[in-house]
Amino acid sequence: MLQQLREKIIAIKDKKPLILNITNYVTMDFIANGLLSIGASPIMCHSKSEMEDLLQHANALVINMGTLNDEFVELCEHACQIANRLKKPIILDPVGSGASHYRTDTYLSLINKYDIAILRGNASEIMSLSGSLHQTKGVDSLDQSHEAIVGARELAKQKNLAIVISGKIDCIIDQDRISQYDRGSPLMPFITGTGCLLSAVVAAFHAIEKDRFKAAELATLFYGICGEIAEQKSNGPGSFRMQFLDALNIIPERDHYENH
Amino acid sequence: MLQQLREKIIAIKDKKPLILNITNYVTMDFIANGLLSIGASPIMCHSKSEMEDLLQHANALVINMGTLNDEFVELCEHACQIANRLKKPIILDPVGSGASHYRTDTYLSLINKYDIAILRGNASEIMSLSGSLHQTKGVDSLDQSHEAIVGARELAKQKNLAIVISGKIDCIIDQDRISQYDRGSPLMPFITGTGCLLSAVVAAFHAIEKDRFKAAELATLFYGICGEIAEQKSNGPGSFRMQFLDALNIIPERDHYENH
Amino acid sequence: MLQQLREKIIAIKDKKPLILNITNYVTMDFIANGLLSIGASPIMCHSKSEMEDLLQHANALVINMGTLNDEFVELCEHACQIANRLKKPIILDPVGSGASHYRTDTYLSLINKYDIAILRGNASEIMSLSGSLHQTKGVDSLDQSHEAIVGARELAKQKNLAIVISGKIDCIIDQDRISQYDRGSPLMPFITGTGCLLSAVVAAFHAIEKDRFKAAELATLFYGICGEIAEQKSNGPGSFRMQFLDALNIIPERDHYENH
Repeated sequence: MLQQLREKIIAIKDKKPLILNITNYVTMDFIANGLLSIGASPIMCHSKSEMEDLLQHANALVINMGTLNDEFVELCEHACQIANRLKKPIILDPVGSGASHYRTDTYLSLINKYDIAILRGNASEIMSLSGSLHQTKGVDSLDQSHEAIVGARELAKQKNLAIVISGKIDCIIDQDRISQYDRGSPLMPFITGTGCLLSAVVAAFHAIEKDRFKAAELATLFYGICGEIAEQKSNGPGSFRMQFLDALNIIPERDHYENH
Repeated sequence: MLQQLREKIIAIKDKKPLILNITNYVTMDFIANGLLSIGASPIMCHSKSEMEDLLQHANALVINMGTLNDEFVELCEHACQIANRLKKPIILDPVGSGASHYRTDTYLSLINKYDIAILRGNASEIMSLSGSLHQTKGVDSLDQSHEAIVGARELAKQKNLAIVISGKIDCIIDQDRISQYDRGSPLMPFITGTGCLLSAVVAAFHAIEKDRFKAAELATLFYGICGEIAEQKSNGPGSFRMQFLDALNIIPERDHYENH
Repeated sequence: MLQQLREKIIAIKDKKPLILNITNYVTMDFIANGLLSIGASPIMCHSKSEMEDLLQHANALVINMGTLNDEFVELCEHACQIANRLKKPIILDPVGSGASHYRTDTYLSLINKYDIAILRGNASEIMSLSGSLHQTKGVDSLDQSHEAIVGARELAKQKNLAIVISGKIDCIIDQDRISQYDRGSPLMPFITGTGCLLSAVVAAFHAIEKDRFKAAELATLFYGICGEIAEQKSNGPGSFRMQFLDALNIIPERDHYENH
């Protein structure tokens, strides 16, 4: 697994895949810096007028709607149409799904209308989309994680998706396979955009690794290892954020993989 | 005072109040990271369509218009209406008031139309709103600070507000009370968003402490202490920003409180 | 040269020129923090309603369209009209020119319609505007750099511009003069916004130094020196970003100037 991971990271640094992000305003800077650090090429787009031109060159499209409104949703629909036509994979991050009807309805509509390759969210967000949502706050217990997994499996089958459920234990699911990793750092929830950036990193791996499940799995594992490296050098959320961006730049060694 | 401060910070970390931010694009990342660091839960909103849903769950609303335009102002009005109806406290940060007529007029209109709980700005911004503005640039001298305080006291009485005037000396005012603190760091003006984030931190304290004056006072004191802690470990504005985010995560000890 | 540089930086810290930025959403935070660190005063604007008021007080206007759409382009046109009327210098950063027809056409239209003082981009962006673009990706070879310079010289003559071509070797051009500097750090392309912030730093220098070529040259040299200082203290892109913001705050000494 370490060997595969190292190969993919080297391939990202070599090929510098172009990741087109239609993303919320809060975490744009962190996403762009994180993608640059692993060696990918980020581009952000906010206009229909250049979507086709940019998607022609892009290797993957990330849709992340943290600060959505009607105009933004329309832009995302436009991007999804073109991406599907051009056979560019779409990674969808349903930020805050379940927190408002507007968000949940918008994400469900995208999943139903377009061919999404990979969906990445926390348990609460994924549950709101799989119809197994009992509550929107603090989905942490084992029971709820189990419920999220059952719902995600069903959703993956229905819509032909790979799904990443992020949390203390990360879970990668498609219709046949499931992997779980208990890695990362408890400091990760204390900085904004860790979920958003993971979605973008998944996109960068998928640009190199065609198997969606495998791409999502390797990206999630790498992300967790980076969290562990960063935590060791941090004194709080501010220094963790900086160290994490440094860690994303490395190619993991055996020590990083095993020592956790 | 230290004991009260520690209790409130522990309460924030325990209850994780949800702070809804309608905020400018420049400092969103810093505000979100600062709120996460103290233990609060930030959410950003840019659409009328989900305002009611999100405000139902929110403990306070922060309005910060650093990059305002007509559409943004309309969104803020919509949010204020719902927040007042749902009895959620509004913290208003009149970024750049006095720098353009558009800004000054917009903020005055909000203060006149809605029930604002706490107003936080620098002396120049507060003076532009209290009608005692003689100039918009560099309000630093003692005379001008005095003038800002007199104007703010009048505004606090007329509109039933608590007001924080940020500067080298921070001043907290309501119609009966006044407190002043000479804390913080000279590096604070060298990073963007220190004012914006203080407004959000005031909101987090007000979600825990119902007395608006007390909430504003404790938040401002805590913020100043964090500035002092960060400055000791910094070599310039870049490292200060990181250290400040680390400092916001701590629960201050007697040493932090007394050594300045 | 070092003495001139030191004098200009001291003048920036003394006069705190107000730099009005109409800029993309991704790198706003980095631009604002960088300008604050050198001692300038940044302000961001997103509304026609306050453009005239803000430009009255501004010392320079920076247009940077990383996330452009029709509304944003209209805002920029409005700003350019007022800036030309008020004789405020315009610094244009044609982010991603060549990557989409929409971008290239928009930038060419601005250059043709308004009096732009300084244009700053990488070789690929400048070539797309000077009509000598053979490809949009990875313009790094010596031949292509030569081609970019020939095209830029022509463009500078036609439109009466000073032009900065950023890259491993930075090149400053106007119709009569040319300077080249091989400074900076290989870590610079691994953080987002290094180009955007350089454009803003050029604006801050031009607010102090009326000769556009000289302003662009000194700003570019200073920027490279800061990159070298930051690299020595960095372990990756995350720490480089922080150290770079620290470095922008200093006044370079002989050691910084000579040791590279």
